[in-house]
Amino acid sequence: MKLKNGAEYMDSLKQISPVIYYKGQRVEDVVRHPATAPHVRAAAMTYALAADKTHRDLATATSHLTGRTISRFTHVHQGVEDLIKKIKLLRVLGQKTGTCFQRCVGLDGINAVYSIAYEMDRKNGTDYLERFKKWLIRIQDENLMVVGAMTDPKGDRSKGPADQPDPDQYVHVVDRNPEGLVIRGAKLHMTGAVNSHEILIMPTTAMDERAKDFAVICAVPVDAPGITMIFGRQSGDDRRDRRERIDVGKPRFGAVGGEAVIVFEDVFIPWERVFMNGETDFTGGVVYRFAAHHRANYGACKTGLMDVLTGAVAYLTQVQGTSRASHVKEKITEMIHLCETLYSSSIACSAEGWKTPSGAYMVDTMLANVCKQNITRFHFEVARLAMDLAGGFIATLPSEVDLESEDVGRLVRKYFSGVESIPTEQRIKIGRLIEAMTGGTALVESMHGAGSPQAQRIMILREGRLDQKVKLAKALVGIPEKKTGARPKPGTV
Amino acid sequence: MKLKNGAEYMDSLKQISPVIYYKGQRVEDVVRHPATAPHVRAAAMTYALAADKTHRDLATATSHLTGRTISRFTHVHQGVEDLIKKIKLLRVLGQKTGTCFQRCVGLDGINAVYSIAYEMDRKNGTDYLERFKKWLIRIQDENLMVVGAMTDPKGDRSKGPADQPDPDQYVHVVDRNPEGLVIRGAKLHMTGAVNSHEILIMPTTAMDERAKDFAVICAVPVDAPGITMIFGRQSGDDRRDRRERIDVGKPRFGAVGGEAVIVFEDVFIPWERVFMNGETDFTGGVVYRFAAHHRANYGACKTGLMDVLTGAVAYLTQVQGTSRASHVKEKITEMIHLCETLYSSSIACSAEGWKTPSGAYMVDTMLANVCKQNITRFHFEVARLAMDLAGGFIATLPSEVDLESEDVGRLVRKYFSGVESIPTEQRIKIGRLIEAMTGGTALVESMHGAGSPQAQRIMILREGRLDQKVKLAKALVGIPEKKTGARPKPGTV
Amino acid sequence: MKLKNGAEYMDSLKQISPVIYYKGQRVEDVVRHPATAPHVRAAAMTYALAADKTHRDLATATSHLTGRTISRFTHVHQGVEDLIKKIKLLRVLGQKTGTCFQRCVGLDGINAVYSIAYEMDRKNGTDYLERFKKWLIRIQDENLMVVGAMTDPKGDRSKGPADQPDPDQYVHVVDRNPEGLVIRGAKLHMTGAVNSHEILIMPTTAMDERAKDFAVICAVPVDAPGITMIFGRQSGDDRRDRRERIDVGKPRFGAVGGEAVIVFEDVFIPWERVFMNGETDFTGGVVYRFAAHHRANYGACKTGLMDVLTGAVAYLTQVQGTSRASHVKEKITEMIHLCETLYSSSIACSAEGWKTPSGAYMVDTMLANVCKQNITRFHFEVARLAMDLAGGFIATLPSEVDLESEDVGRLVRKYFSGVESIPTEQRIKIGRLIEAMTGGTALVESMHGAGSPQAQRIMILREGRLDQKVKLAKALVGIPEKKTGARPKPGTV
Amino acid sequence: MKLKNGAEYMDSLKQISPVIYYKGQRVEDVVRHPATAPHVRAAAMTYALAADKTHRDLATATSHLTGRTISRFTHVHQGVEDLIKKIKLLRVLGQKTGTCFQRCVGLDGINAVYSIAYEMDRKNGTDYLERFKKWLIRIQDENLMVVGAMTDPKGDRSKGPADQPDPDQYVHVVDRNPEGLVIRGAKLHMTGAVNSHEILIMPTTAMDERAKDFAVICAVPVDAPGITMIFGRQSGDDRRDRRERIDVGKPRFGAVGGEAVIVFEDVFIPWERVFMNGETDFTGGVVYRFAAHHRANYGACKTGLMDVLTGAVAYLTQVQGTSRASHVKEKITEMIHLCETLYSSSIACSAEGWKTPSGAYMVDTMLANVCKQNITRFHFEVARLAMDLAGGFIATLPSEVDLESEDVGRLVRKYFSGVESIPTEQRIKIGRLIEAMTGGTALVESMHGAGSPQAQRIMILREGRLDQKVKLAKALVGIPEKKTGARPKPGTV
Repeated sequence: MKLKNGAEYMDSLKQISPVIYYKGQRVEDVVRHPATAPHVRAAAMTYALAADKTHRDLATATSHLTGRTISRFTHVHQGVEDLIKKIKLLRVLGQKTGTCFQRCVGLDGINAVYSIAYEMDRKNGTDYLERFKKWLIRIQDENLMVVGAMTDPKGDRSKGPADQPDPDQYVHVVDRNPEGLVIRGAKLHMTGAVNSHEILIMPTTAMDERAKDFAVICAVPVDAPGITMIFGRQSGDDRRDRRERIDVGKPRFGAVGGEAVIVFEDVFIPWERVFMNGETDFTGGVVYRFAAHHRANYGACKTGLMDVLTGAVAYLTQVQGTSRASHVKEKITEMIHLCETLYSSSIACSAEGWKTPSGAYMVDTMLANVCKQNITRFHFEVARLAMDLAGGFIATLPSEVDLESEDVGRLVRKYFSGVESIPTEQRIKIGRLIEAMTGGTALVESMHGAGSPQAQRIMILREGRLDQKVKLAKALVGIPEKKTGARPKPGTV
Repeated sequence: MKLKNGAEYMDSLKQISPVIYYKGQRVEDVVRHPATAPHVRAAAMTYALAADKTHRDLATATSHLTGRTISRFTHVHQGVEDLIKKIKLLRVLGQKTGTCFQRCVGLDGINAVYSIAYEMDRKNGTDYLERFKKWLIRIQDENLMVVGAMTDPKGDRSKGPADQPDPDQYVHVVDRNPEGLVIRGAKLHMTGAVNSHEILIMPTTAMDERAKDFAVICAVPVDAPGITMIFGRQSGDDRRDRRERIDVGKPRFGAVGGEAVIVFEDVFIPWERVFMNGETDFTGGVVYRFAAHHRANYGACKTGLMDVLTGAVAYLTQVQGTSRASHVKEKITEMIHLCETLYSSSIACSAEGWKTPSGAYMVDTMLANVCKQNITRFHFEVARLAMDLAGGFIATLPSEVDLESEDVGRLVRKYFSGVESIPTEQRIKIGRLIEAMTGGTALVESMHGAGSPQAQRIMILREGRLDQKVKLAKALVGIPEKKTGARPKPGTV
Repeated sequence: MKLKNGAEYMDSLKQISPVIYYKGQRVEDVVRHPATAPHVRAAAMTYALAADKTHRDLATATSHLTGRTISRFTHVHQGVEDLIKKIKLLRVLGQKTGTCFQRCVGLDGINAVYSIAYEMDRKNGTDYLERFKKWLIRIQDENLMVVGAMTDPKGDRSKGPADQPDPDQYVHVVDRNPEGLVIRGAKLHMTGAVNSHEILIMPTTAMDERAKDFAVICAVPVDAPGITMIFGRQSGDDRRDRRERIDVGKPRFGAVGGEAVIVFEDVFIPWERVFMNGETDFTGGVVYRFAAHHRANYGACKTGLMDVLTGAVAYLTQVQGTSRASHVKEKITEMIHLCETLYSSSIACSAEGWKTPSGAYMVDTMLANVCKQNITRFHFEVARLAMDLAGGFIATLPSEVDLESEDVGRLVRKYFSGVESIPTEQRIKIGRLIEAMTGGTALVESMHGAGSPQAQRIMILREGRLDQKVKLAKALVGIPEKKTGARPKPGTV
Repeated sequence: MKLKNGAEYMDSLKQISPVIYYKGQRVEDVVRHPATAPHVRAAAMTYALAADKTHRDLATATSHLTGRTISRFTHVHQGVEDLIKKIKLLRVLGQKTGTCFQRCVGLDGINAVYSIAYEMDRKNGTDYLERFKKWLIRIQDENLMVVGAMTDPKGDRSKGPADQPDPDQYVHVVDRNPEGLVIRGAKLHMTGAVNSHEILIMPTTAMDERAKDFAVICAVPVDAPGITMIFGRQSGDDRRDRRERIDVGKPRFGAVGGEAVIVFEDVFIPWERVFMNGETDFTGGVVYRFAAHHRANYGACKTGLMDVLTGAVAYLTQVQGTSRASHVKEKITEMIHLCETLYSSSIACSAEGWKTPSGAYMVDTMLANVCKQNITRFHFEVARLAMDLAGGFIATLPSEVDLESEDVGRLVRKYFSGVESIPTEQRIKIGRLIEAMTGGTALVESMHGAGSPQAQRIMILREGRLDQKVKLAKALVGIPEKKTGARPKPGTV
């Protein structure tokens, strides 16, 4: 691993010059710009853990391509143990950053493309996997951060890629030549894009024959010509941008992963970086695999966040003198219960992982989708319970400037105090942390990251093997199956 | 009514000079200051409706004290019809402002104090009601805005008022003299305080004999000597303070009601403005009545907000081309269902209203508490559904500066478009509205305004007449009641 | 009222001879047959209350047709007060019987047909209302029990009435002659049918022109030639049929209302008993009105049942020595909370009642549908909580025969005892009551009575005025309405 | 394995003569008695699968004591793979029987006692494990069915074992002599007791020093002198007892496991069958381990049941012609989602299994408790959704006698038909299956089996490591830990 720790990662970002806009201005230095720095720090934690004795076993892996030690975030899962270690790593990172550390998007993209490339090659005699391995070995050896780019703008959603009035609503190939191809379009909601090294572009949905030019997988450096990023707004971003010490909630890390629009205006991709080129029949596969991996992760990173939130709330009730009330204990129990329910599915879909023909391991699709679906419910309920226990003061607290003010600072300190032994500032800091973790962007991300709730429901029904279940019921009451005509005895022993 | 419309109300605020701090600075002009102006405009809508033909019937009432037409927000409810009209008025105001218009706090305080003053006088021969009526007639005639001030800081919540290490954690009398009394302490979370004319101070909880000095009800102008207000922070307040046109979500109105801490540093109150002075046995009464009235209101104003939110989401799905998807219709149906469930309780507790000995009408306590309890659940679920349907873009949208930027404006417009016929800016505006109405402060307020969830549960159990229910069950299976020894036939016809 | 109390009602049933089958046998005497007697007793309670001083005000009304005192169950609602009194009456009856007392089906049919008959006549010059009044006056004067017959079998539900392979799946006219018409078909799930005097037949759904012969409203005595009833099974019916004293749960009343299939095999109806004859354009109206009235009632009778269930559980925790545990109080609070939430909607849709052109009052459709929709959720949750608090013994209790057995009676008494002072038999009786009220039929009835959940959702969306809500949202952010082209200022004060 | 299949198991039951009462009568032959036969058949399926090629790998294991092939239901788990195979076996058995097959109670008892015996011996130098191994080898070799007997009556639950007015409310030692000890008391809710070979008695709760005589673990044959069993009632037991073909729902299997009270009236236990004798400090351990194993299982067997129920409902909607309605698909998706959420926790707590000092593997306690807690919620919701989709007819269907009746059979067939191609009888059979699986006992068992909901919540809070979570929150906002005084930088990279 070339980049050995957080500091080296940050240095590496200074060597590249992606075009990034935020609030109408170019962002020249993502490592120092207040809007991007907290997200850089969160991603840096993924590098830091690999250098840390306690977490090295989770944070690194042995490359099946080179035998070298690599960051787990660049690894192709080689077994169930890999899948489970990844889950544990993500939870630890969630606990340590209280936010999104962004790097699993690229990891999931790598794993999805790897296995699909193998299957495309096997069917069509292409050499995508070889190209991909070469690219991947560099990523592993240099320990680069990759953003997995899947979500297209989609324009009018009642129409598919090939039927949009504006074809650019889905990334597509506008030219092909002997050196490579040229793409146009955009990807939205790109977590970690502004502080990644590479973009791995994938189709956003299963496509039919008519959408050949939209079926493209390729990799490109973030600062390739023609790429423009626009960094999005988040709840409380102004507090972050003004480097507020307390009111921002998390002084060092972001609300969630920093998201950007990535626009591709006729970006050239050389053939050795192209891993799908018109194979529409494999678009569904890559989307489902990426999505399944990514959905599995949410029961890990978000439970890390919920651990923090539960701890914050528990501490606040100590400060307020209410920690022994039975309803407080009841609600904290519920927060833990929901959190661990989510974690269950992440572990379970990993324990039930299976080997694809390429050797790469996939999580169980059903359980991964179940995991994410529950995130879209339970994260809200956990946040609701946290707000309940935190009390109304997180919505009415004066600013940290007032806390330090000569005129009213003493009043804020006096009237926002709790039990005698704990300084008011601690209560306020914890209150602001809870505010930051329960409002707005933090929850929207849980809802829509890795696919909106309806996307999971479609998969759950599809994977539900309803026919098989109908047979079970018919067997129990002695209804014969139509085809055979024979009447089975119900549940014969 | 001296103040006849919104403009006159705003003018009136310029005549008074309360001491208000916000982000470390004095706020000199609440009508123009960007932090307070949106809240002033929302409160002004309560004045505007009284001047508007369509809504006058809801927005005004006839004073039972003077026979004159007054704002309903200064009225003592004289019957069930008054209670129901108030509910309808609040829903309309919620629909028109999409936020808290602040004035019901004072209204509920007026109604609680009125009936309790009558009962104190009847028991003890005091003359609180006469004093109160005089004060109230001026409020009605001048159409003043009153903030009902109930919530004390409470310090260490494992201890009551009389046991706090710092007695100032509950407002209390520090001196009494022939002209009046002097109070010290603070009230937190005071909605509308900075743009009200008067403060009506009430005790925050039921108290025992030892807390005599904490049992005080009185009224005081907002700019009385010794009063300092500190205006609190809210989600997205920086966007508001910078007068952003789109990103603020609601361009003219606030996130919720603007809340302030009101600090009383030895504030003098003349006797004619004192309506309780040590009658601890009536503290529970005034708290419960205020709380019941206030909880009843939440099923009205918040359903107005939910109407807006449902409309916003419905419109957004039209823009995105998804309005006909069955899961979209299903979720919108659920939003309406939850909203109307809440409204049911507001209407029901009013329809079941009852006459206090003073003649003032109270809502049904059980149903009012049920109403608020459901708010603390359903508002979150409605917000969750709105976030689901809105899509992830509300968490990653570039700023309005980017939208107007020469460099990237065209990209934002292109890639955040929806169906062809509707301008991207409309999609963004609606997205920002949803963002503003579903995140952070907006929901905390629903959780804790009018009392935290546990407060309602205590009342629900207390009002549940469990003994009576046990009797019903025993009668059905033929278990005799202990006292009589006689064995009733089960459910004899 | 000819029938003045329960005993007279029971006598009256002996004067008629409907054809009823149950478990393959004719039921000759519904008053004594163990399968029907409990349901007769529950219906009798509606007669008994009218004769009881305490409840007379709720249980009777003054006929607007004759000015005579009548049972409220035969009354056409003349105002909001009538609607609210009905709700209170139903809750009391639920509390006293712990089951369905069946008579509101006919009441709701009477009210729906009355107002629609008026509107048909007004449009078409028919004389349905006069015919109906004559029939109704007899019902009122004799105080007869009427079963409102709406639900047809429907056969293949992917097809409408006119497209069924077997036309009899919907009741329809097979012949018309100068004396009257002849109908064929069946009605399912007919609550109270076997112990009613009259059947009021209505169409089951909104119909189009092609279904003219299915658009029929008429009344017929239960023992008219060609009518056959088949009484359905219920959970625990064998215990009821064997007249078990304890294990049946409710010794005198049924699980829910006794339901029957009513088959019409070419039943003749004279013209004076025909109140709709082919007016398909009014079928939707009568269905919606009947459904709205009926859905409103569920928040009354079922809350009566929940009162009993809450009391039963509370008593059981006393017996078991757990009544003071905080989680027990928490769950009982929740049971009460859910119960009163349901009641809210029943009261609210009545308080918001409106006058139809006929003078008859309708409940608010939205709130009535909201009420029933919540029943299909909260009754289950209340039952779940009851099962939680009751403990596992309600699923493993030995039979009442064992309790009395010489061999093992002493063991059952010893090992199912609770706190010392209360006899084991009481614990068992209450356990059996909870078992009977939480399992199977009792809950299915809450789900599907008055229409399945999806039926309510369709109405909720239809009544939700989504266009109006979209306007509210657009106004708040300053999006102009298309038609006018004018741009409204957002929320101008 | 001596008993090689279902038939041999049934034969073996005829060789023993436990004293069993049901409805006041002795049950002489559990294999043929209609009340017990269905439960025998379900347990027999556990024997049958071991003899079946397809399932042998799941249904058998290799004894770590003898190296011989044994039933997995007698196996001490030797690794994570064993734990996961067990989960999969239980789901298959749930799918094939649609009910409780009873044998995991003994399995969990064996595993709990095994590891605790080891730890007791290690601490105190006793030889419990050797005794236990000898007993267990016989169980394994003969493939006997063991009932794990934990739940005592508990009498007045506000008092512990040593404080009960009647000491027999908890099983306890009443005499000790050179040959063994003598116990008295009872165990309630004993699943599978009447058709087991052996009883493994364990303490029901953690006990203190004062309860020495209650701290006893021992094994005893079901037909030992002094043992009396009383078989409990279930919903629909009369239909089962009368051997109804259709109305019983599941023609060959029971509603849930057949539960019995086991009364011990001075039963003698020789020392070689005693595995705990007064070691109160290990009572908590054996209870928690048994409970954790048992709670883990519920996400397996119950999901098997839910598979059946989902299939039944899906088939019914096909029969009714509604299977393509979007709300139908939505609800079936939800049923699957909830089912797989439960399964997740069973898999996860197994995948996270850990080795006890004895070598026996334990599931993860937190995730096992989370699993069971969700069962007490989701099984109800799944049942509710099933009732919703099934339609009201499952509550009003005439009996199977009516279906065959000469008088009304043709009417039942005609009016309960669905789409043309499917016989009415099939619709009715499936309806009755749904009725049986959603009502009463079936759900109570899910609520209270393996411990009531509150028992899980206590464990969840206890295992939640709240202190650790508080530290995470404090670290993120830079609050120093008290002890060290040093101030950690928040989340330093």
